[in-house]
Amino acid sequence: MSLANTQVHFRDKQIQMAHGAGGEASRRLVEGLFEPAFSNPQLSALSDAAVLDLISNRVAISTDCFVVRPLRFPGGSIGELAVNGTVNDLAVSGATPAALTVTFILEAGLDSDVLRQEVLAMAEAARRANVPIVAGDTKVVEHGKADGMYISTTGLGPVDARSELNPQRVQPGDQVIFSGPIGAHGITIMIARHDVELEADIQSDTRPLLSLVGALIEQVGRDVRWMRDATRGGVATVLNELARDTKLVVELIEESIPVDDAVRGACELLGLDPLHVANEGQFVAIVSNEKASQAVDALRRVPGGEQACIVGQIGEGRVPRVVAKAAYGGTRIVDTLIGDPLPRIC
Amino acid sequence: MSLANTQVHFRDKQIQMAHGAGGEASRRLVEGLFEPAFSNPQLSALSDAAVLDLISNRVAISTDCFVVRPLRFPGGSIGELAVNGTVNDLAVSGATPAALTVTFILEAGLDSDVLRQEVLAMAEAARRANVPIVAGDTKVVEHGKADGMYISTTGLGPVDARSELNPQRVQPGDQVIFSGPIGAHGITIMIARHDVELEADIQSDTRPLLSLVGALIEQVGRDVRWMRDATRGGVATVLNELARDTKLVVELIEESIPVDDAVRGACELLGLDPLHVANEGQFVAIVSNEKASQAVDALRRVPGGEQACIVGQIGEGRVPRVVAKAAYGGTRIVDTLIGDPLPRIC
Repeated sequence: MSLANTQVHFRDKQIQMAHGAGGEASRRLVEGLFEPAFSNPQLSALSDAAVLDLISNRVAISTDCFVVRPLRFPGGSIGELAVNGTVNDLAVSGATPAALTVTFILEAGLDSDVLRQEVLAMAEAARRANVPIVAGDTKVVEHGKADGMYISTTGLGPVDARSELNPQRVQPGDQVIFSGPIGAHGITIMIARHDVELEADIQSDTRPLLSLVGALIEQVGRDVRWMRDATRGGVATVLNELARDTKLVVELIEESIPVDDAVRGACELLGLDPLHVANEGQFVAIVSNEKASQAVDALRRVPGGEQACIVGQIGEGRVPRVVAKAAYGGTRIVDTLIGDPLPRIC
Repeated sequence: MSLANTQVHFRDKQIQMAHGAGGEASRRLVEGLFEPAFSNPQLSALSDAAVLDLISNRVAISTDCFVVRPLRFPGGSIGELAVNGTVNDLAVSGATPAALTVTFILEAGLDSDVLRQEVLAMAEAARRANVPIVAGDTKVVEHGKADGMYISTTGLGPVDARSELNPQRVQPGDQVIFSGPIGAHGITIMIARHDVELEADIQSDTRPLLSLVGALIEQVGRDVRWMRDATRGGVATVLNELARDTKLVVELIEESIPVDDAVRGACELLGLDPLHVANEGQFVAIVSNEKASQAVDALRRVPGGEQACIVGQIGEGRVPRVVAKAAYGGTRIVDTLIGDPLPRIC
């Protein structure tokens, strides 16, 4: 990792209650680990609040907490997820992240190396998304009152004036675009957790979506009507929310939904619909019929967007809902889940 | 509570994993509880990010997490603390809160009434501080992997142009002002937790500091050099940080430190120095010698500021530190704590 030689000089072997008490031990943690890893002028002030220069009449703000188990998994970790997740919520709102804040809830007894790894993963992810981490807070709870660590992040940034994202702008005939193959994150976590005994070469898709979303807005501007990243509950959930908000029908074409073979195999084995499985690096966009092909072409030119495709369209119907049509007859309703097949996925 | 008739229609008896899964149960929780309680236009959009109109070249941002045990205590609760804590970090940065975000980490099995109470307490505290809660996220972890609930809040708002708060502006001769009596919050929590068997009429001092700080800036403007609210680690900790940052000496006058009798009694019994005990509604301000009396007068005119007073001054010395001088001889060094006598105080 490019940050390996960051001047991290926090040497305590384990996290103890005192590291959350605001005294000397807290100071060692903040100045020995967080400050060098997240180094930037605002954070270094170490006051109660960071001060930003932020002139925009449309600033997006988003917050998320992360409780994923295990903390590390193929393709990523809780720290990387915590940065990318909030960065992506801003990205699909048409915003460019200007600042992130972070809070840690640590379990007493946590190996300091585990924390160090996650802090460096966050610093690396923040650097990749070009966003400073400007403020933070840490609390420690007794052993057995958490599960290693939980992280919350909040991000904010100005909304791109060229975009106008609003479900009310979605209309029949608009096309549904996926940024790439779905389901990798959720399946990765289940395998990492041994919830399923499976040998498969699957990695989480966690990544920042800024360049993909940027290319889309650059190419078709206001013809992107609406975007969401499809995390918990998968694309089925965000599309059902869209159907409900617009009172329209989302018509997916079963065969065009991009799912990698290994993920599809795992889903079949587990009786899961990939549409319900969490992603951490994919988004759904609704684009006008006229500009949909241009939008897909623009996405495909961006590294990581090669598999972007149109997966369906917006239609009308008596009942707002999401349906999937198979080429050879048959239409099924794609509902949201009531239970939780995949707890603590992010 | 004035919010008792808010249209909260969340009826599930307990929090289950599904309430954190992003599907139907999550929707019931968000739309049945969070949305009606925190009702405001930005939150109602229920998208991935809230959009704010925020034009300022100095926007303060602050974040905090709350793991206080027990969740409710005389004078307050975790939800109220979570709002007031972040509001106050902004206030002592000279900023007016414009928006708050919140994340909840809930333990499966949590009684929904407990959550409902805290959500309403947050809504009431936000209303009191006149700040909307514009975005949020909820995760649920297995029973035994949290302690009821943990809350993170982030706040942001424009900095008052009349203030210029910076430890580098602090100079010898400046006066040290406390907004009121110290130590109530920490002692309240210890008693509520039965860490100490004591019958005492002590309540947490949790409250928003906006009107007190506003009156101070209104009265003496740039003559306030520096402010901090004195939470974890008490005033001793924030003053030690000030000494370190300024390389100056903070000279307190032992007899002038305001401590309520019941708090003082409890501290004596426990062998605690009130200077180390957490507050949730008090701040320390450094004000120029010329304007210090005016500053105290302005604070005393605000309800809740009646006991504001000068407790010492800034001096010079070979070693930056905090000292307390007693009237009848003797000067002691007031250090920060290394251990944690009061874990999970906020």
